[in-house]
Amino acid sequence: MDLGPFPDAPGHDRALALAAADPLASERDAFVIVDPELVYLDGNSLGRLPAAAPDVVHDVVQRQWGERLIRSWNEGWWELPARLGDLLAPVVGAGPGQVLMSESTSTNLFKLAGAALLARPGRSRVLTDDLNFPTDVHVLDGVCRLLGDDRDVEVVASPDGVHGPVEALEAALADGDVALLSLSHVVYRSGYAYDVARLTEAAHAAGALVLWDCSHSVGSVPVDLDAAGVDLAVGCSYKHLNGGPGAPAWLYVREGLHDELSNPVTGWFGHAEPFGFDLGFEPAQGIRRFAVGTTPVLSMAAAEAGIAQVARVGIDAVRAKSVALSSFLVELADEVLVPLGFELASPRDPARRGGQVALRHDDAWPITRALVEDAKVLPDFRAPDVLRLGLAALTTSFLDVHTAVHRIAAVVRDGRHEPFRGTTATVT
Amino acid sequence: MDLGPFPDAPGHDRALALAAADPLASERDAFVIVDPELVYLDGNSLGRLPAAAPDVVHDVVQRQWGERLIRSWNEGWWELPARLGDLLAPVVGAGPGQVLMSESTSTNLFKLAGAALLARPGRSRVLTDDLNFPTDVHVLDGVCRLLGDDRDVEVVASPDGVHGPVEALEAALADGDVALLSLSHVVYRSGYAYDVARLTEAAHAAGALVLWDCSHSVGSVPVDLDAAGVDLAVGCSYKHLNGGPGAPAWLYVREGLHDELSNPVTGWFGHAEPFGFDLGFEPAQGIRRFAVGTTPVLSMAAAEAGIAQVARVGIDAVRAKSVALSSFLVELADEVLVPLGFELASPRDPARRGGQVALRHDDAWPITRALVEDAKVLPDFRAPDVLRLGLAALTTSFLDVHTAVHRIAAVVRDGRHEPFRGTTATVT
Repeated sequence: MDLGPFPDAPGHDRALALAAADPLASERDAFVIVDPELVYLDGNSLGRLPAAAPDVVHDVVQRQWGERLIRSWNEGWWELPARLGDLLAPVVGAGPGQVLMSESTSTNLFKLAGAALLARPGRSRVLTDDLNFPTDVHVLDGVCRLLGDDRDVEVVASPDGVHGPVEALEAALADGDVALLSLSHVVYRSGYAYDVARLTEAAHAAGALVLWDCSHSVGSVPVDLDAAGVDLAVGCSYKHLNGGPGAPAWLYVREGLHDELSNPVTGWFGHAEPFGFDLGFEPAQGIRRFAVGTTPVLSMAAAEAGIAQVARVGIDAVRAKSVALSSFLVELADEVLVPLGFELASPRDPARRGGQVALRHDDAWPITRALVEDAKVLPDFRAPDVLRLGLAALTTSFLDVHTAVHRIAAVVRDGRHEPFRGTTATVT
Repeated sequence: MDLGPFPDAPGHDRALALAAADPLASERDAFVIVDPELVYLDGNSLGRLPAAAPDVVHDVVQRQWGERLIRSWNEGWWELPARLGDLLAPVVGAGPGQVLMSESTSTNLFKLAGAALLARPGRSRVLTDDLNFPTDVHVLDGVCRLLGDDRDVEVVASPDGVHGPVEALEAALADGDVALLSLSHVVYRSGYAYDVARLTEAAHAAGALVLWDCSHSVGSVPVDLDAAGVDLAVGCSYKHLNGGPGAPAWLYVREGLHDELSNPVTGWFGHAEPFGFDLGFEPAQGIRRFAVGTTPVLSMAAAEAGIAQVARVGIDAVRAKSVALSSFLVELADEVLVPLGFELASPRDPARRGGQVALRHDDAWPITRALVEDAKVLPDFRAPDVLRLGLAALTTSFLDVHTAVHRIAAVVRDGRHEPFRGTTATVT
């Protein structure tokens, strides 16, 4: 099929004008782009490879592991989780000493939710919403099951499957007895972005702690953890931070809570003296008490290049481009894709929208397959009927958006998705 | 100082004879050895770099991440934890489908101990010993604290700080009410190796489940998990498996327990349909239900080369050489080092000794520093007074042992450790 560019199709002039005014256009040069024809709209699932990452990994493998061997623990490895945490801190509006790279998002959620519930022994309710990433709900359920005492997770329903149930959550908080409110800052499916400060304030007014999952916002949408008074947060680093496949996650604990909270998963990297080998557990001072096991050095070291780039560019500049990208996509989708059966499944208000746009279509799955197989577009599919287009601001251009919209339109108009009807959805 | 070789020093002929008869001598060629003069006796902390690993990592970074991007999840990444688990299985005497690479040893311990205690709700005692790696005791404490109901960890004392308190553990089991017995197969400090089958049988006779930490034995000492009827096991892959710094750990759950046990940390990689995004948790069938978060792909992929080599060589051949190495070291230490103030702090019986030898000395710390700084020997120090010599069978030669013993002797005889008295121990 014709992969474009499509100079005569709607929006081309706007794309050129937006591209010409894009202060971050050259940031894309800091990535390895093997196939320039491929429009990659999945940087919100797995960010691209920063060009600086392979040399870092090569040095870790050949020199640090191969030559320096065990000595490397004292020559940088030991410091990695806190050092990269501090590198990431300004991206999430955190002062130093409050962010730690560690484990997976799921494990970090478990640790911090467990710590929060142990710190609120008299309260039995944990609040979340039905837009949350299902794992988050499962982890909260698991913590409640271990702790017992009638602790239970209440899942507040979104009014429309797109927007967060803000008022309903506030009402549920006001009912009392809530130990913890835990939500995704940007929800994985619709891209709805919560007002973190507003919900955090409501939680605090009700005496609850708050735990934000920033996996879908970190590196894309500012979160201002310190300014909003957030207690706890977690997130991954393999999406908009471009940290690499399965790169270690991070966690944030507000400094004022370090001494009050205790990590329920008491591993040696969270011990005050990991090499004292004392049978009694004495937690480390500060954020390091929330560490657990040995750092997966290769994966963690590889994440530095991506994090450093976002930190250097600045999250506000990233956000500005991200909003411009998604607004342009919504505008073009209204014009070109809605007549072909698509429907916007993300908030229209850019202030409430993260770095991704969801489009509903009855044939979303076969369309996804045709895009991948025939049209050199890599989107996400989310069952049963959502095409999710990720707009990683550092690696996506306005011409990418234009090209993708018209390739999607061509697939549907030409019926290229028909052969994929009835195939099984195997996606990530 | 004179780094040898020491052809006229005691034991040289024996070293040569042992080397000539060593069927695994050429396995060392499968590793990157940057400095052939360095005697690396810390392969039990961080194994050497397999020569095959850098190419694997390069392919993961450049092609799988850089070029294939998100598609790589369906092109191998998703299968990594179970595939490498099955690769490792014969090394620990496990049939297929029971070993999974996952998270860190600490997190795996937490998951399996939690699952075990949830499966034994009427029993309050958790048994371990004071030779166990302290993190294991801390994790068990943490699980008990979360579960409450008077659950408590009892730490049975070793008779001499070297050997496991086998009879005392059997007596404590017979007292009843034990939910879980959890021990290190080979203990980190003295290298004592438990009789896994004997303790497992005693635990089962008392109605308890058993959880072995094989971090210090895997890839060095056979464990025969299936044959011994072991319920649960965990271990790391960065020691004798040469998987790389902080390489993901593994866990084993006996097939008959898969349906009975439930993982308390319910992350999406353990869900039956991770991409169904259902708010209800339905555990995956088989060992995958004990997975949690997204696989740290770089670190996990790098571990394959080391695991594959041990599987190819066979654990019995590895063990035979390991016993020969440690027996030769004990023999030489008796002859050369005991007169200089060293004392064996490992079992004399090779059947009860893992792949490491501990030597006690009042000046163990300054001697360690002098060995590292002046003598090109990398040992481990374990506070307050133990020099721990790891004998990784695939990368350590009999001449390495001979050279190391005589370099240690020279350091002490010549007082090269004196300048390091009073320095602070900063070790891994």
